[in-house]
Amino acid sequence: MAADKVILLDFYPSMFGMRARVALAVKGVEYEYREEDLRNKSQLLLESNPVHKKIPVLIHNGKPVCESLIIVEYIDEVWDHKSPLLPSDPYLRAQARFWADYIDKKMYAAGRKVWTTQGEEQEAGKKEFVETLKQLESELGEKPFFGGDSFGFVDVALITFSTWFHTYETLGNFSIKEHCPKLIEWVKRCLEIGDVSKALAEPNKIYDFALARKSKFAAQ
Amino acid sequence: MAADKVILLDFYPSMFGMRARVALAVKGVEYEYREEDLRNKSQLLLESNPVHKKIPVLIHNGKPVCESLIIVEYIDEVWDHKSPLLPSDPYLRAQARFWADYIDKKMYAAGRKVWTTQGEEQEAGKKEFVETLKQLESELGEKPFFGGDSFGFVDVALITFSTWFHTYETLGNFSIKEHCPKLIEWVKRCLEIGDVSKALAEPNKIYDFALARKSKFAAQ
Repeated sequence: MAADKVILLDFYPSMFGMRARVALAVKGVEYEYREEDLRNKSQLLLESNPVHKKIPVLIHNGKPVCESLIIVEYIDEVWDHKSPLLPSDPYLRAQARFWADYIDKKMYAAGRKVWTTQGEEQEAGKKEFVETLKQLESELGEKPFFGGDSFGFVDVALITFSTWFHTYETLGNFSIKEHCPKLIEWVKRCLEIGDVSKALAEPNKIYDFALARKSKFAAQ
Repeated sequence: MAADKVILLDFYPSMFGMRARVALAVKGVEYEYREEDLRNKSQLLLESNPVHKKIPVLIHNGKPVCESLIIVEYIDEVWDHKSPLLPSDPYLRAQARFWADYIDKKMYAAGRKVWTTQGEEQEAGKKEFVETLKQLESELGEKPFFGGDSFGFVDVALITFSTWFHTYETLGNFSIKEHCPKLIEWVKRCLEIGDVSKALAEPNKIYDFALARKSKFAAQ
């Protein structure tokens, strides 16, 4: 694999981009990180993802792969020498894909309502966000990771959102731990994995980014 | 595989349910089809898909798999003796997953606007619908199938929508063939595969269903 050239087109605060970063990190893949300015996207991004024009894009030996969960599954299939993310059993694979899809369908939209809205809309967002996390906490059950004894596909899909928890809690004025203590314990376990924590954005930087965005919304 | 017990909880006009029917058909898997009354869902459906409470659900030897593309991928992995749906190369697999995801994100919502709305909203829906199909036609290119020389994952994901084309065209007063002639040729090629055409709903029955739904909307 020494000859592999891997480039990641990404945006620092993106929980979707972070999924690719985490997967590459746990697989020990070296890559070139390229930060995109989303208001002035690079020609490479526009050419690599002409359909959605979104980050993240993983470019492996010149060939682009788009959409974060598809990228993670691609990484898992190409670099299959260590840290398998999806289980080998078809039923367990289907279950992992189901929960990753659930996170995609629910977490971003609910989280966004928490930090960008006010009043009733924000309360509804918080309710939806907490219900989503509780559902995930219930799926986690007593297992150390969603992947069972080891960090897996659903763990990758969800852990990147934890970098936003401080922002959701501060701007939404609520405590996630109060509602979902076991999920917060799971976050801690994930962060103890060095490759995972190194690949994640810093919660304080996410918060600064969110505050800057909010003041821009307010000015518009 | 003779001892396998396979049940599909489904709803006849559903393009998502039809994906499971098509995948099971091309794999030659025998199964019990159970039509759901979506206004009075069975206890089995509610227990098998407690998160979304939606069809289709594939129950394989008592274990439920939910979400249509996840079901198709599961079927492809379990019954891997014939008609592979996803290619074996990781990059081609990622591409197939990308286009199936694109269909999921775009087709249903655009199609729904075409047949349930009027006036400007309907025109916008038609525009979006045609643009989506043109994008897919461009991806198909000169290949016989999205899967290349053989019917594959993206073909399964999209062909089920063709059973609704008559409804979209009649209620939207436009011709899909006029905009996307090569895609209509692709539909014909898919329908020549006996196992595929047998598994699809009849366009006239879909139309009757849509008309009944529309008159119910109007009465509300």
